[in-house]
Amino acid sequence: METVSWVKSGAVRLIDQTLLPNKLQYIELKTVESVAAAIVGMKVRGAPAIGVTAAMGMALAAVKFRGADREKLNSALDSAAELLAATRPTAVNLFWALDRMKYVAAKSGSVENVRKAMVAEAEKIRREDVEACRAIGAFGAKLLKKNSRVLTHCNAGGLATAGYGTALGVIRAARDAGKIERVYADETRPWLQGAKLTAFELAMENIPATLICDNMAGALMARGEVDAVVVGADRIAANGDFANKTGTYGLAVLARAHGVPFYVAAPVSTIDMATPDGAGIVIETRDEREVRIINGVKICPDETEVYNPAFDVTPAELATAIITERGVAKAPNANNIKRLACKR
Amino acid sequence: METVSWVKSGAVRLIDQTLLPNKLQYIELKTVESVAAAIVGMKVRGAPAIGVTAAMGMALAAVKFRGADREKLNSALDSAAELLAATRPTAVNLFWALDRMKYVAAKSGSVENVRKAMVAEAEKIRREDVEACRAIGAFGAKLLKKNSRVLTHCNAGGLATAGYGTALGVIRAARDAGKIERVYADETRPWLQGAKLTAFELAMENIPATLICDNMAGALMARGEVDAVVVGADRIAANGDFANKTGTYGLAVLARAHGVPFYVAAPVSTIDMATPDGAGIVIETRDEREVRIINGVKICPDETEVYNPAFDVTPAELATAIITERGVAKAPNANNIKRLACKR
Repeated sequence: METVSWVKSGAVRLIDQTLLPNKLQYIELKTVESVAAAIVGMKVRGAPAIGVTAAMGMALAAVKFRGADREKLNSALDSAAELLAATRPTAVNLFWALDRMKYVAAKSGSVENVRKAMVAEAEKIRREDVEACRAIGAFGAKLLKKNSRVLTHCNAGGLATAGYGTALGVIRAARDAGKIERVYADETRPWLQGAKLTAFELAMENIPATLICDNMAGALMARGEVDAVVVGADRIAANGDFANKTGTYGLAVLARAHGVPFYVAAPVSTIDMATPDGAGIVIETRDEREVRIINGVKICPDETEVYNPAFDVTPAELATAIITERGVAKAPNANNIKRLACKR
Repeated sequence: METVSWVKSGAVRLIDQTLLPNKLQYIELKTVESVAAAIVGMKVRGAPAIGVTAAMGMALAAVKFRGADREKLNSALDSAAELLAATRPTAVNLFWALDRMKYVAAKSGSVENVRKAMVAEAEKIRREDVEACRAIGAFGAKLLKKNSRVLTHCNAGGLATAGYGTALGVIRAARDAGKIERVYADETRPWLQGAKLTAFELAMENIPATLICDNMAGALMARGEVDAVVVGADRIAANGDFANKTGTYGLAVLARAHGVPFYVAAPVSTIDMATPDGAGIVIETRDEREVRIINGVKICPDETEVYNPAFDVTPAELATAIITERGVAKAPNANNIKRLACKR
């Protein structure tokens, strides 16, 4: 199962995640426009996976460019970057990947060299993401106790990354270390990524999993049935405040109230040193029909207004630790986040 | 719009709430079995409405009884009470209504007198419920400030009672007093009563309403957009601990963490003096397909386990006040709950 991959003939191959868990179908995208549309339409989602997909979208723009005019290539790449940057505002990995691809293009000389270098760089970003997830998993697994019952929100799994996952990377590594008794998956309205993607990944791995509605997490904690919460992140500000899927903030407050450790697992590419704190993170508000209509059926009257923020912001002090591929920031703050972000 | 009513020819008339908001359809039930099935199948729900429906179910058993043999009538009523009592375990109003109807039967002499008395008593329970809701509304409205933005969970409205509602009774009365700026309705998975019923009632009343996913409530509070939470209750223990729709507990913890007042609105018939505290409240676990399948489509793999408690228990100390038709218990505890329950 490969979430995002490069097709040598010149295409980006994705699992269409909107069809899971009922259908595992791959799609091949041959234009930057279709890559951008796939990100907007959430056929691929998850901050690291969006980063990898955008990088491959940039490689695609280079490969599909006809001719040898370097200036024209530059403007084609600028257009591609602009199109991809406009897809989703919150996950910083998207902008990080675009910057990295633009940098490679800038230093690569001839059009032919740019093509080769950009395909190689996109592949490298993909490979590095899987490696980062494995390292996150190893660091995170050490933090969990034996027989842990872990709650996770949304999908921060192999499907949200190039593979292995961030939060699910921690769970996979902890399972391999014999530390996982059960995973509780919040279904995660409105998109239900917890039910459709996380439960699917856990079923494929034979990890015991229980699906709950988002509103059941508090009572589960009160009954002492949750030993740790592990989630991903879409953007981590310089002080450790972080944006993640809508509902994460409430879960963090509940975890704190019940003395349950709350871990955030994300690659360093999710850290945005240019944003000092959570107040500066742009939160995407999505189409209200995502809440209003479920599987083709309206759930509320037309007159009712709907609020549909895709993410929320959790202050650093509610996170027990942020787990990256470079190590762990316990009680995250500006100092230990900077140390991780700027480490070589 | 009448949630539950008695049809003179001998039937219980209900709105089939499973079809709302897309279709407003009444059903007439002519047997106790069909009344019990309607409660189990959630065509009628909400603790007070279940109480009224069960009372009418008992009246129906008396009316449909053929003959004049008082002993045979007694055993028919015992069977009816047993059937109705087995429908749903958490809402105490059900058992309260059955006891009240059995008491009326016991003191009513001839079969014909029992029939008349039971129909009259069921009607009286219905009328009293509407009156109780209006009194709850009046007491509750006083607690809210001007321009309140009120969050509610599930449906504790006219559809959960014989009319007017408990939590929505407070909101209706507060609106009449010019105190409501906006109502936030938690959609309330898995049954979506907030979207399907509360948003529907608010739309009919032209009260500005915004539907949110349950997991968005915490972030909304953090942004200072919620001035009060008002919910109903399915059973209030003698010490003030209470059971209500799954998700209420988490919401109460979030309200406390953000300094948002949390009000519980319920008639005195919801108080169960025989249950000392929340630990003694039986929590109904319902069919996992209610979570697993939405509008006919599976949202998770078959292997995934599902947890589907219909209610949770909130400790009394998280409630700012419990609002009944006899008055308000601020900072509810065994003393002020007893005073309300035993007041004449």
